[in-house]
Amino acid sequence: MSDAHAVLRVVCHDRPGLVADVAGLLFRLGVNVVHADQHRDAELNTFFQRLEFTVGRDAASGPGRRQFTDEVGRACEGWKMQWKLRFRDEQQRVAILVSKRGHCALDLLQRHRAGELGCEVPFVVSNHPDLGEEVTRRGYRFVCEPMAVGGKAAQEARILDLLAREKIDLVVLARYMQILSPSFVEAWPEKIINIHHSFLPAFAGAEPYRQAYNRGVKLIGATSHYVTKDLDEGPIIAQDVDDVSHREAVSDLERKGRDLERVVLAHALRCHLEDRVIAYGKKTVVFD
Amino acid sequence: MSDAHAVLRVVCHDRPGLVADVAGLLFRLGVNVVHADQHRDAELNTFFQRLEFTVGRDAASGPGRRQFTDEVGRACEGWKMQWKLRFRDEQQRVAILVSKRGHCALDLLQRHRAGELGCEVPFVVSNHPDLGEEVTRRGYRFVCEPMAVGGKAAQEARILDLLAREKIDLVVLARYMQILSPSFVEAWPEKIINIHHSFLPAFAGAEPYRQAYNRGVKLIGATSHYVTKDLDEGPIIAQDVDDVSHREAVSDLERKGRDLERVVLAHALRCHLEDRVIAYGKKTVVFD
Amino acid sequence: MSDAHAVLRVVCHDRPGLVADVAGLLFRLGVNVVHADQHRDAELNTFFQRLEFTVGRDAASGPGRRQFTDEVGRACEGWKMQWKLRFRDEQQRVAILVSKRGHCALDLLQRHRAGELGCEVPFVVSNHPDLGEEVTRRGYRFVCEPMAVGGKAAQEARILDLLAREKIDLVVLARYMQILSPSFVEAWPEKIINIHHSFLPAFAGAEPYRQAYNRGVKLIGATSHYVTKDLDEGPIIAQDVDDVSHREAVSDLERKGRDLERVVLAHALRCHLEDRVIAYGKKTVVFD
Amino acid sequence: MSDAHAVLRVVCHDRPGLVADVAGLLFRLGVNVVHADQHRDAELNTFFQRLEFTVGRDAASGPGRRQFTDEVGRACEGWKMQWKLRFRDEQQRVAILVSKRGHCALDLLQRHRAGELGCEVPFVVSNHPDLGEEVTRRGYRFVCEPMAVGGKAAQEARILDLLAREKIDLVVLARYMQILSPSFVEAWPEKIINIHHSFLPAFAGAEPYRQAYNRGVKLIGATSHYVTKDLDEGPIIAQDVDDVSHREAVSDLERKGRDLERVVLAHALRCHLEDRVIAYGKKTVVFD
Repeated sequence: MSDAHAVLRVVCHDRPGLVADVAGLLFRLGVNVVHADQHRDAELNTFFQRLEFTVGRDAASGPGRRQFTDEVGRACEGWKMQWKLRFRDEQQRVAILVSKRGHCALDLLQRHRAGELGCEVPFVVSNHPDLGEEVTRRGYRFVCEPMAVGGKAAQEARILDLLAREKIDLVVLARYMQILSPSFVEAWPEKIINIHHSFLPAFAGAEPYRQAYNRGVKLIGATSHYVTKDLDEGPIIAQDVDDVSHREAVSDLERKGRDLERVVLAHALRCHLEDRVIAYGKKTVVFD
Repeated sequence: MSDAHAVLRVVCHDRPGLVADVAGLLFRLGVNVVHADQHRDAELNTFFQRLEFTVGRDAASGPGRRQFTDEVGRACEGWKMQWKLRFRDEQQRVAILVSKRGHCALDLLQRHRAGELGCEVPFVVSNHPDLGEEVTRRGYRFVCEPMAVGGKAAQEARILDLLAREKIDLVVLARYMQILSPSFVEAWPEKIINIHHSFLPAFAGAEPYRQAYNRGVKLIGATSHYVTKDLDEGPIIAQDVDDVSHREAVSDLERKGRDLERVVLAHALRCHLEDRVIAYGKKTVVFD
Repeated sequence: MSDAHAVLRVVCHDRPGLVADVAGLLFRLGVNVVHADQHRDAELNTFFQRLEFTVGRDAASGPGRRQFTDEVGRACEGWKMQWKLRFRDEQQRVAILVSKRGHCALDLLQRHRAGELGCEVPFVVSNHPDLGEEVTRRGYRFVCEPMAVGGKAAQEARILDLLAREKIDLVVLARYMQILSPSFVEAWPEKIINIHHSFLPAFAGAEPYRQAYNRGVKLIGATSHYVTKDLDEGPIIAQDVDDVSHREAVSDLERKGRDLERVVLAHALRCHLEDRVIAYGKKTVVFD
Repeated sequence: MSDAHAVLRVVCHDRPGLVADVAGLLFRLGVNVVHADQHRDAELNTFFQRLEFTVGRDAASGPGRRQFTDEVGRACEGWKMQWKLRFRDEQQRVAILVSKRGHCALDLLQRHRAGELGCEVPFVVSNHPDLGEEVTRRGYRFVCEPMAVGGKAAQEARILDLLAREKIDLVVLARYMQILSPSFVEAWPEKIINIHHSFLPAFAGAEPYRQAYNRGVKLIGATSHYVTKDLDEGPIIAQDVDDVSHREAVSDLERKGRDLERVVLAHALRCHLEDRVIAYGKKTVVFD
């Protein structure tokens, strides 16, 4: 039995002595902090901290781990902190949702296969059958849940059921072209990551590359964000842009955009999986 | 008397043989093409071309130049082209308008002084006196035209009068924080360049850095565009962005933004002065 | 039988009238120029031009195409131009060479499958068996040519033989970790594209990410270039960089670098396949 | 008498409990930590930390400040840490050295005037008289120390003397085109910041833009670094790049490069002045 690696994130109202309090707690618990980062939103007077540490073999598993977690939780709650503690060996289970365009979903599978993402990917769900062959030939399970069978409410119910049965921790919308219902979104707070194919808040809504072309912008972008009830308004995790010129047709913007979308979504997903993101209001802290 | 350098830009409905027609004309007129670039908007079926060339001493000045211009004009009109011919030695006269924040205006003066911009800058106008000392100590004329004296209409009339008297070719709004009236804008079509301190169309309107901060974007931008009656909707000439993180306050965004604004405005101005920009509808062709 | 799309590239010593000559020739041949771009290396007095056009049904195929090509060739040679004419429907055949790291090769296959590259990819060759399963499950042929069988000279001979039999037009080294012999390289001038995992000329040679880490640079890069006898010295087609910080270990640089390598190599390959690149000396013209 | 703002930086061999030790010390001393960041070089097993905090009025000035500093120092030395404590109100005095090209030096003056740099700039020194008028008309002192008077050793001695008399804390080489002697450099360890006009380690030495042009790179860069005895080998603080194409002559690279140099040098200087940089070996930690 060896050491375990864990990440603790805390959020609370700021006050003097917080850093010393948390550092002292972890020291008393015998952990070795390998990385610590913090942030203070001066306008809201809110304190955010992320601590990455190793715990010795006693606390690394079984009852020791439960006891360790209890002690951390008791202290944090005493300090009126919101807290999340995750051990790295508890890999998150990620469901990928996609429609017809596979570039993001297949890219995530390739990164997963290459060991770039520390998570499990038990299946890919789509409302269309088109990507079935590409997904299964890569060795992943493909689930087709078409809208036509019983309408949108029934389709979402089947997907929610699948997510529950498969003990999914996170949903990634890898160009899933359906708007999730508010009840779906509310059931998965800060647990649905979307890639929008524009530099939000510019060109929210449908066909952003066409909008960008018509407006004549000189840069196009992609934005990965948590999904909330307000479409394209969720907290942004990552964004990037690329140059375009008058020479480029809508199809060129789409092609360039695919590279942006792939990289931005994969980056946002990695940040989430490494517990680097804390969403608050419409914003995020993304520790690097 | 030596050779002269000129740029011809043409726009017309596309048809076969256009490139050969124009190339043949210039060859017959004895010019040496040093650079040619063209573009076709496939959706509008419109053809755009920019030709940079040298003309021999006969056509380089005086009556020869007028005759050369006439022949080019006659041919282009015969082909139903819009055309503009400009000789490089006819430097454009540029008026800089600014309010209180001098970073863009002073940067343009520094570039002008260093010979980076091929134009004349006879004066800087402001609706506030604040930058007078900084401008004049650099050796430039400063004109203060406050709103308070007679109201906005009177102030604009005084500025328009000044532009006319000084034979100004182009107006640069280098963080001029007043909205020009529609009649001012219409009198100067494609002859007013603005710098907007956001990545348009995101965060149009007032206080874009505050808007960007509140939205939690991960990149901020700057946009230089021609001014039209529709605020922040004019054809975009240049844009750029820079990364921001949760650590950065509004004041940090403003500071980073100043560097973006300076570089984007100077780039757009250079493109205009080198006759590289053709605006059409809400878009531009920017030949590189 | 419909129209055909073609690209003509010419290089020659610069002289007045060149643009008109070429434009006139194409007009007489009845083509419709859809894009033209040119460049002049002022230091070498060399002229480069790329013309993209459609030819009518008479010249689009069979004897008409041969006759068209002959006429273009005759004219260009009369003008002492180097010239290359390629019809778009004659897809190039591209061989991908790879060693153990598949990120670039698999990415190219995914782009090929998605129709992003206008070429044929008859096979992937590797000096190791590792990627065989990944390549074949995507429906592509995998050829393993290990060094161990007969040594390097024999291995290269087998690959050269394969390239000849399969009528390959272009070789892409997608992280092929062997140095090709000078005789191999000379047999494929400007027909081998490599991706080097650094911002050349910085960190040429082995383990560039380790070199970059040790030097403490704040940006890492990737460079795609034609392969010449001088290692890492061939004409550069495309480069890009990404930020890195003190937080990132060599393995992080490698991960970020994989994204750079994929995008830069794909971009360089597309430019080559669209006949946008003209190499001369150690440099390239890359028309956009 | 109000609170004071201070930054403590520590470097030491890594060991468990370090974070708790430092946090506990600062808590006992009654400071309020407003920002903390840390880094661990895993290969060297070295720990780096930067803490930004406010101290109450007792410790903010006079004997209280000295006593506070002593207590911090005693604790850090007990823990075998290298440490530096600086109060923000003790502005650093910065000397700008320049030769003939003023774009970086004048840009720093403009930023200083705008309040962007929290430092004093008592003078600008040059080995040429050319920039005297531009500097003095902006209201700064200009000192000309030509090489011709007594040779290089004498010139450096005069500059060193000036730096000492003026109690200078930091020297900025803003395109100072002379190589400082090893004895000068050794007298100012990690206190001389240079801007090199290339993406180091590419194109070290003279005329980097010409080198970049000749090599045909597709990006040019600028690098700001501490000066050490090994030319262009000092620890890098900041780098950035911009695209270039075959169209751009050496003079275009120089013009684009000037914008890069300005921004990169100003950024590096700000990082230094805010005590964000810790150099070690050939590398730096730059806390953001």
